[in-house]
Amino acid sequence: MLRLKSYLAGTWKDGEGEGATLLDPSTEEAVATTSTTGLDFAEAFEHAREVGGPKLRAMTFAERGAVIKAMSKALYEAREELIDASILNGGNTRGDAKFDIDGATGTLAYYASLGKKLGDTRVLVEGEGEQLTQSARFYGYHAKLPRPGVAVHVNAFNFPAWGLAEKAAVALLAGMPVISKPATATALTAFRIMEVLVEADVLPEGALQLVSGSAGDLLSHLGPQDVLAFTGSADTGTHLRSLDNVIGRSVRVNVEADSLNAAVLGADVEPGSETWNRFVRDVCLEVTQKTGQKCTAIRRVFVPKERMDAVQEALIESMSAVVWGDPRADGVRVGPLASKQQLDDVKAGVAKLTSGGATQVWQSDADPVGSEGKGFFFPPTLLRADDPRAAAVVHEHEVFGPVTTLMPYESDAEAGELVALGHGGLVASLYSDDRDAIASHIQALAPWNGRLLVASKKVVDQATAPGLVLPSCIHGGPGRAGGGEELGGLRGLDFYLQRTAVQGDRGLLERALGMR
Amino acid sequence: MLRLKSYLAGTWKDGEGEGATLLDPSTEEAVATTSTTGLDFAEAFEHAREVGGPKLRAMTFAERGAVIKAMSKALYEAREELIDASILNGGNTRGDAKFDIDGATGTLAYYASLGKKLGDTRVLVEGEGEQLTQSARFYGYHAKLPRPGVAVHVNAFNFPAWGLAEKAAVALLAGMPVISKPATATALTAFRIMEVLVEADVLPEGALQLVSGSAGDLLSHLGPQDVLAFTGSADTGTHLRSLDNVIGRSVRVNVEADSLNAAVLGADVEPGSETWNRFVRDVCLEVTQKTGQKCTAIRRVFVPKERMDAVQEALIESMSAVVWGDPRADGVRVGPLASKQQLDDVKAGVAKLTSGGATQVWQSDADPVGSEGKGFFFPPTLLRADDPRAAAVVHEHEVFGPVTTLMPYESDAEAGELVALGHGGLVASLYSDDRDAIASHIQALAPWNGRLLVASKKVVDQATAPGLVLPSCIHGGPGRAGGGEELGGLRGLDFYLQRTAVQGDRGLLERALGMR
Repeated sequence: MLRLKSYLAGTWKDGEGEGATLLDPSTEEAVATTSTTGLDFAEAFEHAREVGGPKLRAMTFAERGAVIKAMSKALYEAREELIDASILNGGNTRGDAKFDIDGATGTLAYYASLGKKLGDTRVLVEGEGEQLTQSARFYGYHAKLPRPGVAVHVNAFNFPAWGLAEKAAVALLAGMPVISKPATATALTAFRIMEVLVEADVLPEGALQLVSGSAGDLLSHLGPQDVLAFTGSADTGTHLRSLDNVIGRSVRVNVEADSLNAAVLGADVEPGSETWNRFVRDVCLEVTQKTGQKCTAIRRVFVPKERMDAVQEALIESMSAVVWGDPRADGVRVGPLASKQQLDDVKAGVAKLTSGGATQVWQSDADPVGSEGKGFFFPPTLLRADDPRAAAVVHEHEVFGPVTTLMPYESDAEAGELVALGHGGLVASLYSDDRDAIASHIQALAPWNGRLLVASKKVVDQATAPGLVLPSCIHGGPGRAGGGEELGGLRGLDFYLQRTAVQGDRGLLERALGMR
Repeated sequence: MLRLKSYLAGTWKDGEGEGATLLDPSTEEAVATTSTTGLDFAEAFEHAREVGGPKLRAMTFAERGAVIKAMSKALYEAREELIDASILNGGNTRGDAKFDIDGATGTLAYYASLGKKLGDTRVLVEGEGEQLTQSARFYGYHAKLPRPGVAVHVNAFNFPAWGLAEKAAVALLAGMPVISKPATATALTAFRIMEVLVEADVLPEGALQLVSGSAGDLLSHLGPQDVLAFTGSADTGTHLRSLDNVIGRSVRVNVEADSLNAAVLGADVEPGSETWNRFVRDVCLEVTQKTGQKCTAIRRVFVPKERMDAVQEALIESMSAVVWGDPRADGVRVGPLASKQQLDDVKAGVAKLTSGGATQVWQSDADPVGSEGKGFFFPPTLLRADDPRAAAVVHEHEVFGPVTTLMPYESDAEAGELVALGHGGLVASLYSDDRDAIASHIQALAPWNGRLLVASKKVVDQATAPGLVLPSCIHGGPGRAGGGEELGGLRGLDFYLQRTAVQGDRGLLERALGMR
């Protein structure tokens, strides 16, 4: 059976013992094993700090951008192989696998282009500087330099390719070396990515290392110049943020966690209108794509009270048309959940919601196509909660599968209040053509969400889906969503840079900071 | 005796029991008592959320700026009264009291002017927006809106006026209501400030509340839209960051904590030169101003090995000229420490340093002028550590009094390494006229410090002192310094705003966001 090794300190290393077994979630057959027991993570940190960091910091942004471009190119050339890995170990349909892998290469290409634009410089200086006293000579600049530490990335099981690539692209462009840890259950794709990058020899030594399996004592090595970016459950996020060394050494932490993302149908939208159809299409897509295993999936659907039945009918019609089963079978658009653990969690989650104020109004009664009675399949499911204020759990517990809950609101102001019951989300989407209502919804929804998609008539055919994370827009959200921010073009680099106010002789500093 | 009340939910409230006694640190006489026992902080949060927040968010930046301007004006008019309070309860010299109080009014005036510049708008939009797909209509903007929560400010004992004002100025301009808690020992000045502001009636209802004493269960009320800004010890910072609700609800926390700030004398600087003299003047000022009780004071002085004796001699000469004692006595420039606790900590700290590799090379042997054998006086003291790598505690333990340690370096690269042993500072200062050396020092020092002052020949007469925090430059630092950022002009507002990527129809969003 395939054995996944870790890529640390410049070589492939295997842990002791058999370790974890990775499965094909459609068939429950074993596809690989991996172990990190006994691996020397202290050495990996030292390698990043002593070799990778200096090499990256010596490069200009343009040079780092060229590295990232080469990474994108190498992965694009291995696209079919990576898609196969995601179908095999992730239970992805081909479409879902492409969503992950093309997201990875696309985000790398985007940051490569930003590097090219930044050009032959190594320091980012914000703005023009400012005269600080009466003297025209004494100036202040805000300069951003890469932190001389290690960026540790802990990724979620659902996007093994995109998660690795989007975080690495930003850190590497900023000039920080990366140690990346994919979720063990679906690590095959990340392992293949690392193989491709090592084989293509596109990385500076020490710039990127991969931990294929359990994190062990990895995080205990984090110090004051290191950063930790985590995507996953709120519970794990809380654990990571509570670590003694993380708190005591002020390790920068970015958490992107659970989120009860909301879609709001405006009171003005008539059934059958273009905006209505776009709303139905988006909800159906976000419930079913990646089998609902997306941090940006729509979990709560708020509609005017009088539209509840019509929306329910439209969603059932739309969701009924989606074929689910083994991703290798013809026509399947929804695969299994990624692991037994996920399946158990989704089953328990639906039970939690239905015993906490929600009612199940529809669930696919088809058998999963192509399944032989094995696999972690769960049918697309629609819930409804007619008294959303009495259904606290619907706003608090994320069911990470093809499940969403429909709820009524009675006024625009109430819609905002109900969204806020989620205590912070990654994205909300609003469907409306009423300008005044849109303006007031934005005021209410924006502070509770990291991103807000407004779908109105004139953009129904052009707008991206709310679940799609674009590298040019920040990704993250307040409160329950973890309080973090990733991507957003150059904004994402700030996490990896120390911003320092540099004060002194204007001409002298402008030369020292490479401004002239 | 004077009784300090808290200003909560729109009225002055007194706690139960006698509570804490505030002293005159020069005489140890009691000057006031205060208690917060039994006060209803839940009500204070609700008042801020339900009254103060909506009122502030309804105002434009220009209107908030006008409020802040009125605050500055009211405090300026009460300047003499506030100076008296700081001499009485803080042990400040008149100069030190002015440093605190003029810093407060100056920072308020600065943010008032920023509000005026931002004008009649309520949303900050970053940049011009970006086309997100092939369609020229589908655009993304990054909009920043005030968080609909409460800003809790926990301030340090050393700057009761500036600490309250600089944090409040930024939060109020951003549109968030504030609950401010000064350190109990020196709370008189903050209490007087609140009295002045209430009397002048310049604040919107619920915009600013004051907790005069122990925090009690104040922080347990923090939720996902609230923020906590803390200035004080690393231990307390660690405690605050570890609170269950702070971690579990992703409460934004800004910590500004211990910092072993460094001054580096360049290898090129000749004794007696202008740059040399400026270096000696700065070190002496930073050791003695506010009796060394400044988070930005110079704690570690790094000089070329061959300059050790000359620098020691110059510093002793300079420090010997500073008169210390009761701030009400003629000629006194260094007052007592602020409390018995501070005096005990400083004594213990010097013992810790001298038993950990440092040697005491000078201490004022004068008696404190005007003291009658009472008061928390500690003499200005100079330590020296000839083997800085063997004196770990000198880089790790901040003695918060008129004490600094002189150390040698052998190469420019080593100077950077030694500064980094402090594991992150608020500010470092560099004294040099060698352009190449300055450029390489900046690369090494910047990532370890939130601010870097470069004093060179042409600015020796114009540069501000390294310990002076300007509202236009960020204040904070990585690692041991807490990892936070305050001030920095508009940068400071980001802590109080949620940045949201808003995607949709370009024209529609530009109207909704007030861009046209």
